[in-house]
Amino acid sequence: MSNLQVRLAARPVGLPDSSTWQIEESPAPEPGDGELRVAIRYISLDPAMRGWMNDARSYAPPVQIGAVMRAFAVGQVTASRHPVFQEGDLVSGMFGVQEHAISDGRGVAKVDPGIAPLPTWLGVLGGTGLTAYFGLLDVGKVTEGDRVLISGAAGAVGSAAGQIAKLKGCHVVGIAGGKDKCDWITRDLGFDAAIDYKSENVGERVHQVMPDGIDVYFDNVGGPTLDTALAFLRLHARVIICGAISQYNATGQPYGPTRYLSLLINRASMTGMLVSDYAARFPAAIAELAGWLAEGKLIAREQIVKGGVRQFPEALLMLFAGANTGKLVLEVS
Amino acid sequence: MSNLQVRLAARPVGLPDSSTWQIEESPAPEPGDGELRVAIRYISLDPAMRGWMNDARSYAPPVQIGAVMRAFAVGQVTASRHPVFQEGDLVSGMFGVQEHAISDGRGVAKVDPGIAPLPTWLGVLGGTGLTAYFGLLDVGKVTEGDRVLISGAAGAVGSAAGQIAKLKGCHVVGIAGGKDKCDWITRDLGFDAAIDYKSENVGERVHQVMPDGIDVYFDNVGGPTLDTALAFLRLHARVIICGAISQYNATGQPYGPTRYLSLLINRASMTGMLVSDYAARFPAAIAELAGWLAEGKLIAREQIVKGGVRQFPEALLMLFAGANTGKLVLEVS
Repeated sequence: MSNLQVRLAARPVGLPDSSTWQIEESPAPEPGDGELRVAIRYISLDPAMRGWMNDARSYAPPVQIGAVMRAFAVGQVTASRHPVFQEGDLVSGMFGVQEHAISDGRGVAKVDPGIAPLPTWLGVLGGTGLTAYFGLLDVGKVTEGDRVLISGAAGAVGSAAGQIAKLKGCHVVGIAGGKDKCDWITRDLGFDAAIDYKSENVGERVHQVMPDGIDVYFDNVGGPTLDTALAFLRLHARVIICGAISQYNATGQPYGPTRYLSLLINRASMTGMLVSDYAARFPAAIAELAGWLAEGKLIAREQIVKGGVRQFPEALLMLFAGANTGKLVLEVS
Repeated sequence: MSNLQVRLAARPVGLPDSSTWQIEESPAPEPGDGELRVAIRYISLDPAMRGWMNDARSYAPPVQIGAVMRAFAVGQVTASRHPVFQEGDLVSGMFGVQEHAISDGRGVAKVDPGIAPLPTWLGVLGGTGLTAYFGLLDVGKVTEGDRVLISGAAGAVGSAAGQIAKLKGCHVVGIAGGKDKCDWITRDLGFDAAIDYKSENVGERVHQVMPDGIDVYFDNVGGPTLDTALAFLRLHARVIICGAISQYNATGQPYGPTRYLSLLINRASMTGMLVSDYAARFPAAIAELAGWLAEGKLIAREQIVKGGVRQFPEALLMLFAGANTGKLVLEVS
């Protein structure tokens, strides 16, 4: 049994390219004592991956040159010498971009395909949905009637965040690129309005559809869009810094929000969030998200790239090109 | 009895200059029913004044062209048809840059010269000390052992904030311009270390004197100094946006903090504050500040500019030149 792996060959400057990756085939390893082996089925594609590739101090150590690329994934246990997991179990964890992973069980959770298909466990029932959930509820502290603006609104986190905000009784506006994405979030997901940043002036449109300003801005993109949102903050507004996909491949100085003094004028806050901080509350949150999913109140959409781990380099670039709607997932087998 | 007044003649671009102001003399007015008249003794000089001069949406309406310049001040009631205030009372309030003010009593408070001299009621017992107090304690939520960095540390708010942080058992580092200011905050005020931004590399020095990073950054200056602080945030750090004096006279795009994603990496927050939000708690805070002052735990320093309201234009520029140490106050009579 062989194991195809995608390893980081070189740290990219700007967008990753063919020199960034090394695809290797080796025999699939056997689990040692206390370990399990997972046959990976689906790999999560996340904008945060770009940060993990940089040699910079961050919330997680950089992926080392020559190491298997870090990735969250779901798969099936094919061998176990671990007390908790048994052959046949379906599990999620930080398994990396490869076909077979060895794990000591840390950060591994069982997933139930009876609740939702495997890719959804990378989407609204995975890190994506949990990021939206804790970002919006814990950091954003949304309450009924709040005016919520979301960037990257047709992306994985943004589309979940918008739906959760609607469930909480908020007025929700999403910023997305292109008519199809804008149609999807308003028609299918129930956003109150969409702004197409590719064809519309975002500031003018925010002013139009949120005439009383913004209580909560959930930011996935950074850059000038963040500045635009800052211009419309209401008193005591909360800005959730979840990501900044527009800046991850910047080769020059990243874009700093020149309107940050809007925080002072409006006694507002801008707070960074990372879903792993809420790990102790994942089970309860997943139960609530799964409930909404079952009731049809939360729509899960995954865009699945086929072709196995060899497709990873290209699939990752889709995120930065804005080519995905909903959660982008790589199918391994 | 004549009344010399400083009126806003034109909105400055960049630093205010002689064309910004119009100094007029008119008869001192008489209070109407429910009003009082105050002979102003000392006027508070605040960096925030620069913002009040711009025609932009902010927390307070802009000073109108032709209007008396807005200013906080202390003085003595010389005539009263107001039920609360009597002739002879010493009071503080938003009396403007003039010799005599008419007030309806809103925002006016009696001050007790037995507790501290009048200029101190514009300093550590006034908006300055209260800003430091609520910024550090309520927004910054400092607790014992926190590593606190303060910019504009020899200024009015910064010098008070640093002392309060020391009273709370924090490790406190101040950034100030020049050896005298640095000596003052370390020798007299008890800061643990000072960084002279005029002669030292701020980033290198922060790294040196705060090797474990920053829990709380109290920002009065903005600009690249804010960026430097962001680079050293610890997990769950709090950045208090109190001011941005380096940017108030910028004629181009203001400097946006390019390292704001440090908020994400460190799950930190950046929050704007305005002292007026805490008005209901002023009496209790002033009592605590006055207690520290009486015990010698809090040192009040005012730098008093003489020459009356005619000196206002020049005195205001001292703030932006960093010419003051402690609270800058204009003596009127």
